[in-house]
Amino acid sequence: MKQMLADVQAKPDTRGISLAEVGIEDLHYPLLIADGQGGKREVAATVTMSVSLTADVKGAHLSRFIDVLNEWRDQFGPGNTLSMVDELRRRMGSRSARAKVSFPYFLERRAPVSGIPSFVDYACELEATVLDTGFELTQQVDVPVTSVCPCSKAISDRGAHNQRGHVTIGARPLDPRGDLWFDDLIDIAESSGSSPVYSLLKRSDERYVTMAAYDNPLFVEDIARNVALALQADGRIAEYRVRIVNDESIHNHAAYAAIPWTAVATDSWSGNGD
Amino acid sequence: MKQMLADVQAKPDTRGISLAEVGIEDLHYPLLIADGQGGKREVAATVTMSVSLTADVKGAHLSRFIDVLNEWRDQFGPGNTLSMVDELRRRMGSRSARAKVSFPYFLERRAPVSGIPSFVDYACELEATVLDTGFELTQQVDVPVTSVCPCSKAISDRGAHNQRGHVTIGARPLDPRGDLWFDDLIDIAESSGSSPVYSLLKRSDERYVTMAAYDNPLFVEDIARNVALALQADGRIAEYRVRIVNDESIHNHAAYAAIPWTAVATDSWSGNGD
Amino acid sequence: MKQMLADVQAKPDTRGISLAEVGIEDLHYPLLIADGQGGKREVAATVTMSVSLTADVKGAHLSRFIDVLNEWRDQFGPGNTLSMVDELRRRMGSRSARAKVSFPYFLERRAPVSGIPSFVDYACELEATVLDTGFELTQQVDVPVTSVCPCSKAISDRGAHNQRGHVTIGARPLDPRGDLWFDDLIDIAESSGSSPVYSLLKRSDERYVTMAAYDNPLFVEDIARNVALALQADGRIAEYRVRIVNDESIHNHAAYAAIPWTAVATDSWSGNGD
Amino acid sequence: MKQMLADVQAKPDTRGISLAEVGIEDLHYPLLIADGQGGKREVAATVTMSVSLTADVKGAHLSRFIDVLNEWRDQFGPGNTLSMVDELRRRMGSRSARAKVSFPYFLERRAPVSGIPSFVDYACELEATVLDTGFELTQQVDVPVTSVCPCSKAISDRGAHNQRGHVTIGARPLDPRGDLWFDDLIDIAESSGSSPVYSLLKRSDERYVTMAAYDNPLFVEDIARNVALALQADGRIAEYRVRIVNDESIHNHAAYAAIPWTAVATDSWSGNGD
Repeated sequence: MKQMLADVQAKPDTRGISLAEVGIEDLHYPLLIADGQGGKREVAATVTMSVSLTADVKGAHLSRFIDVLNEWRDQFGPGNTLSMVDELRRRMGSRSARAKVSFPYFLERRAPVSGIPSFVDYACELEATVLDTGFELTQQVDVPVTSVCPCSKAISDRGAHNQRGHVTIGARPLDPRGDLWFDDLIDIAESSGSSPVYSLLKRSDERYVTMAAYDNPLFVEDIARNVALALQADGRIAEYRVRIVNDESIHNHAAYAAIPWTAVATDSWSGNGD
Repeated sequence: MKQMLADVQAKPDTRGISLAEVGIEDLHYPLLIADGQGGKREVAATVTMSVSLTADVKGAHLSRFIDVLNEWRDQFGPGNTLSMVDELRRRMGSRSARAKVSFPYFLERRAPVSGIPSFVDYACELEATVLDTGFELTQQVDVPVTSVCPCSKAISDRGAHNQRGHVTIGARPLDPRGDLWFDDLIDIAESSGSSPVYSLLKRSDERYVTMAAYDNPLFVEDIARNVALALQADGRIAEYRVRIVNDESIHNHAAYAAIPWTAVATDSWSGNGD
Repeated sequence: MKQMLADVQAKPDTRGISLAEVGIEDLHYPLLIADGQGGKREVAATVTMSVSLTADVKGAHLSRFIDVLNEWRDQFGPGNTLSMVDELRRRMGSRSARAKVSFPYFLERRAPVSGIPSFVDYACELEATVLDTGFELTQQVDVPVTSVCPCSKAISDRGAHNQRGHVTIGARPLDPRGDLWFDDLIDIAESSGSSPVYSLLKRSDERYVTMAAYDNPLFVEDIARNVALALQADGRIAEYRVRIVNDESIHNHAAYAAIPWTAVATDSWSGNGD
Repeated sequence: MKQMLADVQAKPDTRGISLAEVGIEDLHYPLLIADGQGGKREVAATVTMSVSLTADVKGAHLSRFIDVLNEWRDQFGPGNTLSMVDELRRRMGSRSARAKVSFPYFLERRAPVSGIPSFVDYACELEATVLDTGFELTQQVDVPVTSVCPCSKAISDRGAHNQRGHVTIGARPLDPRGDLWFDDLIDIAESSGSSPVYSLLKRSDERYVTMAAYDNPLFVEDIARNVALALQADGRIAEYRVRIVNDESIHNHAAYAAIPWTAVATDSWSGNGD
């Protein structure tokens, strides 16, 4: 067999350039994710995995990423994502390793007046980085809401432009194996817009949602600040970032507001721990 | 040189299966398109081109598609797209050939009260099919509008949900070298929603647009019918199709209405030709 | 309560224009789909549903689409999609109704030499249309393969350009409640390229796949014809369409070949039924 | 007129949360960009613009973003993007402002043997951030290449898997009004893969490209390092980042390598300035 299957990746490299990330992306894989109530649900995940590569080695053995993912695929969740990434780092002999796992997540929601249940979809993401000196875990949710424009309402005799908005929250938990769950972040996002959105609304519900949103007009700036206050008050979060995007109904572009990674002030959240 | 560059595509095929389309897609190419006022504008087009292949030939020579496109690239427009496709058909020795050219198209629009100009983008498309027995030319536009929900307005004491909608019109002109232009179809689409959208709106404009839209609530069904009536009345159109999509602000899904290819009744448009 | 929640959609319309489709699209919903072995799997589906609307009615009640979907969501599969669409048609009082349900589907595949298992993802789709006079059911799969260019191999002293290709098969089964399954169509697509693709390949597998593909060079035209022959021979298929797209490695565009809806010749498949 | 068009955005805010970015995104706008040879070309740009907002103000006046963009739209280029962002910052009274402008860019390339010209598309991007204390300018290109896998070639008796790759280079020039141009970065990217890609290749060209690529096999790691060495040697670049993505032909996922923002060592580039 040709060159007895030479290990080309293991050869030395002399260009003197280390690589922060070598890996795979856009891999679609079925994972079993803890559902926060002790059960598991299968999700169709999109996966990115990488390791760092020192300057003296030519390449990384990418098939091992799938080996590791396959071993962990039936026991995903925030804490275990860290464990998987740490195993990846050790098996690859790397200084750092990272994984990002994105998937659609569904929650049953009851229409506000009729009470009829239907499912709403949320885009969720787990991202873990492990170095020889520490680690970082991010839980992210992307949540649709309705937003009514306060300016349009204030300056118009009737009506107000409104649109679908998207609230994206990234949170790093104080305790990566604690009880912060996607549902918690989704609840914060959903209650920070002018109104939640639903898949099924009967007429009585549509009336309710229309007026509730009209009575609660919010700019992207307002929603971002409301979300930040709620995250500061949660007590389980060490750092967060927020991004709100409104698909403006009177423009063909979007409005957005963003808060970058921000540490939760100790006195802010500690009070909530009581 | 190996096999003197064997012409593999020209070899015979014995599987007995003809192919309706063999070609290229997702080619990005700079084209000069007539702007309807005697000038030209460069657009970044996405191109699909194909020919039919008889059952007895193994393959098509795809490099010739680029040859042909390159020759016509500085003189695009509805009529010339037909000419290009006809040349493609003849050079490939095929029974039929087809091309689809999609590109962003910009028009300067004045805000309704302040009159300040800004550009709005529309997705346009030319599609031409030429057979040995005839041809077909489609001009398509995709136009953003605002839509206010009539039901939400009727059942609520205040407010009404509204959102960005997209009006897609495909039209086959009676005369492919006539004066039907993208701008005409865009005007029909834009005036069939609750209100046009703009890139720039000052407060006086926002007040105007908010109230104008609120005073003109329309379902996707209404918009589709309004567009169809306008196309029927235009006098330059032989066939049309319509599709309206509303990015519902109270749901995380869209509502839509569609009218498939429909011939314009002769007595409908002939009366307008007088 | 305002106008006692007026039923705006039920009002008459006088524009004289019927609509072929009024409905919802881009709805993300969790469905339980039969897995072909008597079990069920949860999938994250993207759903389009519509009904026809007669010229004399103003609008359709879109919330009922979610009602119907929700009732059927735990018993999906080809035959039941038809049943659901028929129920939708009857509940909406429409002449025709249609639904399209797309979802990622995973199959475990063993690497060809090492035998190590991993999952490969396939995009699947069910589309059903029901009229008062009949129905139509389409099962579609989109399958990644490797393709090696026969021309590049024939004219070069060494090497041959190759790339990821996508084989899309749409099939209408003779018996919509028969045993034609997504797995069958995936197998046909996967065995019609130069080689299947895998998520995990060890070096011995990579050697095998590289040489197997190099020894089996195929144009998009070849793959389309191979797929068509296999579908003709299957015995369970009434009509099919095929589309092959190669993400050319030496171009920044794709090559493609397409066969439109084609009826399977009776003598072709009947022979296979014995 | 209602409340004389109250300036809602200018109201005070008491939540105590400043926002790093408030702005618009996904705006499509026609811009005239310097082409590096003294001329200009119209491009269909996708634009993001934002300013920071202090904790004590409720909102930003987003219509002014379009005012500013419109004024500068016919004189774009790296240096002027900085000027525009600085003007935005001053007009909005903000500490920082930023803009990102992405557009397709075409270069005519001659096939390597036949010499026939055709256009290849590259995704380009300008990003500028201006603070009261300094500024940052990034020029980015995304360039398609062919890559042949060194491992597949080494372990196989014949053939080697290859695929389309994407080389993304972000560079911060030493002199933002200097002569570093998109074309320079595109050249570096294109010459760092196994071979450039072309829109049009005749058979003699296809033979040349197939063998040239086969004779120059490169991992994503190799391409990343080659690009980094070329950027280090350029003499006009202060910082760079690199990302290579290969759409693997034997997998349904991608392989990638990334180098984060890296300062060019002074002794590395100063030598090139002589």
